[in-house]
Amino acid sequence: MIPNWLLQRAYLSPNKQALSFGKETWTFSEVNSKAQNYARKINAYGLNEGDRIALLGKSNADMVFMIHACIHLGLEIVMLNSRLTRTELEWQIKDSEATAVLVSDDLKLVIPESKIRAILFSEIEQMREIQFDIEDIWDTDRTITIMYTSGTSGLPKGVRQTSGNHTSSAISSVLNLGLDDEDTWLCTMPLFHISGFSILVRSVIYGMKVQLYEKFEASEVAKELMNGSITHISVVSATLDKILREFEDNNAIAHSSFKAMLAGGGPVPVGYLERAEKCRIPILQTYGMTETSSQTATLSASDSMRKVGSAGKPLFFNQIKIKDTSTPLQSGEVYIRGPHVTPGYIGHFASENPLVNGWLPTGDIGYLDEDGYLYIVDRRSDLIISGGENIYPAEIENVLLGHSKVIEAGVCGIDDEKWGSIPVAFVVINENVMDLELQHYCEERLARYKVPKHFYYVNELPRNASNKLLRRKLKDMLDLS
Amino acid sequence: MIPNWLLQRAYLSPNKQALSFGKETWTFSEVNSKAQNYARKINAYGLNEGDRIALLGKSNADMVFMIHACIHLGLEIVMLNSRLTRTELEWQIKDSEATAVLVSDDLKLVIPESKIRAILFSEIEQMREIQFDIEDIWDTDRTITIMYTSGTSGLPKGVRQTSGNHTSSAISSVLNLGLDDEDTWLCTMPLFHISGFSILVRSVIYGMKVQLYEKFEASEVAKELMNGSITHISVVSATLDKILREFEDNNAIAHSSFKAMLAGGGPVPVGYLERAEKCRIPILQTYGMTETSSQTATLSASDSMRKVGSAGKPLFFNQIKIKDTSTPLQSGEVYIRGPHVTPGYIGHFASENPLVNGWLPTGDIGYLDEDGYLYIVDRRSDLIISGGENIYPAEIENVLLGHSKVIEAGVCGIDDEKWGSIPVAFVVINENVMDLELQHYCEERLARYKVPKHFYYVNELPRNASNKLLRRKLKDMLDLS
Repeated sequence: MIPNWLLQRAYLSPNKQALSFGKETWTFSEVNSKAQNYARKINAYGLNEGDRIALLGKSNADMVFMIHACIHLGLEIVMLNSRLTRTELEWQIKDSEATAVLVSDDLKLVIPESKIRAILFSEIEQMREIQFDIEDIWDTDRTITIMYTSGTSGLPKGVRQTSGNHTSSAISSVLNLGLDDEDTWLCTMPLFHISGFSILVRSVIYGMKVQLYEKFEASEVAKELMNGSITHISVVSATLDKILREFEDNNAIAHSSFKAMLAGGGPVPVGYLERAEKCRIPILQTYGMTETSSQTATLSASDSMRKVGSAGKPLFFNQIKIKDTSTPLQSGEVYIRGPHVTPGYIGHFASENPLVNGWLPTGDIGYLDEDGYLYIVDRRSDLIISGGENIYPAEIENVLLGHSKVIEAGVCGIDDEKWGSIPVAFVVINENVMDLELQHYCEERLARYKVPKHFYYVNELPRNASNKLLRRKLKDMLDLS
Repeated sequence: MIPNWLLQRAYLSPNKQALSFGKETWTFSEVNSKAQNYARKINAYGLNEGDRIALLGKSNADMVFMIHACIHLGLEIVMLNSRLTRTELEWQIKDSEATAVLVSDDLKLVIPESKIRAILFSEIEQMREIQFDIEDIWDTDRTITIMYTSGTSGLPKGVRQTSGNHTSSAISSVLNLGLDDEDTWLCTMPLFHISGFSILVRSVIYGMKVQLYEKFEASEVAKELMNGSITHISVVSATLDKILREFEDNNAIAHSSFKAMLAGGGPVPVGYLERAEKCRIPILQTYGMTETSSQTATLSASDSMRKVGSAGKPLFFNQIKIKDTSTPLQSGEVYIRGPHVTPGYIGHFASENPLVNGWLPTGDIGYLDEDGYLYIVDRRSDLIISGGENIYPAEIENVLLGHSKVIEAGVCGIDDEKWGSIPVAFVVINENVMDLELQHYCEERLARYKVPKHFYYVNELPRNASNKLLRRKLKDMLDLS
């Protein structure tokens, strides 16, 4: 059993600062009032406990209140990614069987005009309030959120994250990072991703302030790191680089009260680590995924130069093993176990059990060194991580194959200074086609970050004996060309 | 599922300081080695997973290694109180059906010469080692410890504390107290009580150093508080007073890095709070019991003068309610719910369910104020808390009634400057008897702290219509005399 996070936190620390956005700040008691207010209005739509709804909004204060309102009501929230296209969103909404989509007014055009019931935030505001009893305690396996992520098939899977998953993730993290009354986490990560959402969970469980931004602005973020108003921040390599440039341009160092920069989405280049050290920014590289409700392993700042390329050790309540081996340095598929691991999927993949004997096979290939530090050597399903967003080649290939002029398609990531990695496509065509035509075709069907940045026209794709596409050989074709 | 605390901690922070005792210090890796070494030796006695053993030793490093050895082996540990008499220990050992008693050599005389198998620590040292597979993960409901505490009947009850109980207690505490890499908890509390044992649990879960002492020496403790080598300490009012005297005698203040003094065993007198404030010692009053694996509620230092007499608010994962009321300021029995609450007893009370609809009725009477702060107004079963030790009147009365000259007996606590409270007895006798005779009689059967400090000879005891002893009226008899 887990106490209703916000209810308990508002009882324990009513007057502590919980959230700031723009120039405004709210205490936990105020956040709770806002959330309860919205909850009673949403309740008036006849949405209540156990119902599944989809939520689409930007990362701002209203979205935070709306999230907690839905949690108070006992709704399962499908967190929609605002960067997706209508086509992609439609698929997820349909797959999730959500009763309704709550959507912030500025995003209403993104919502497909389907049979789904869309309710604008402004409409909710206007609604009358209907009282209900807020659950003050939850079952550990209550689904709080559902986040879509693609798998080997390229078809998005709705991952369930329970109250137990989120809670144990927050708890494991605090045992690693420590906790102080004055801690403040700066959040520019999208709330619809586990990286951002997990910051909100930590906030209510720890009684910690979140300084929230709708968009990442390197200069603003750097300023906060310098002036001592924040202690923690989550980044990906692409945003880290921009922050470092701000420091370098200003010849500045981080404030001594700044404690930890959690860097996810693949290893941070050594060059960045060296630059960060000069700016006195402690970087903690972390390894996690939607299925593990954020961090599974984290490398301490003090180990960052000693264990370059490592994702660190598991957090306290988690376990990591390499499939079929306990020999250090031997590579194999990374398996994860712990209370933070999802119990499973919804919709199309509902019947698929993500666990094998209690362990989650990640698809990632890695090894543990002699000291038990994890190194990831190859990403699952040729996963491309671009600016912190996960891109599964299969999803893009499926779209390309829908184009009448494309016979075969293969997608891989190539290094990119700005984004870490970007997707490029190799196509076999049956008729001449312009890059722009393929690009437009993709743009209509895929979030912008997934659209291939280059198209290469080839005679055939590298395949194995059973005709399976060998994506890792795609890159070799580039080197040869 | 919970990872084997020490195994996981030794993997994650092998070189971090874990324990100091006397002039020696051990890292987590070293504590784990010592514990594994003992575990293999204990294993050679044929004691293994699921077996129940009793453990009797003083609060020193060897005892810590022995505790972790037993936990590694999967044994259920009955933590014996070294202050008890042979008679009392015999009862507990028999009730617990322990397979053996592991006893440190300096306490071997306390062990009853019964049929129980006693194994001295020195014998274990000499034993050969037998390898075994250490469980790296535990079920949440695995019993780690059993601690005896008396109830209304006066008969000691063996309280089970599971891995889940201990873990959630440590986690709840850290969300309240915060955590830093440099934290060090000074422990002079006996390890056989939950107050001391819970410090060991926090140590392995947090990766925090424990500075352990076999005995409480006010001057030594005060020195550590002044020199900045420790950040936390647990005390009871009696020890607090002695520490404050040291500060006052030396005109000293606590080091700025000292963070929290956790004060249990009843409210701290206001006078002490004022003195502590002058010495810059932040006091956090706490309310807990064996059945709740230590703290349930804790009052923050900043609230100590604003909410005098309060035990604070529940820790994050816990709930407190007053039976049959949700009106602030209305008194009733205090009910507790949370993952830290025992699943039940062993032995004589094994069939008794401690919970009512998931809540633990504490027997204590209290109320919640308008802000949700808990106040205890009357202790369960007329419980006497003397120098941090719980004394149940019924247990002493039962002993006195065994004396041939005593017809009726009633025991209550009276205020005492040194111990907070001390037990005194009211007896109805059928023949003249000397105080000394009753005192000796008790000393043979009861731990010294339980022996009444005064005997009052009366004609009758206050009873209600159904002839039930009214212990609360005993004190009135004193005021009249």
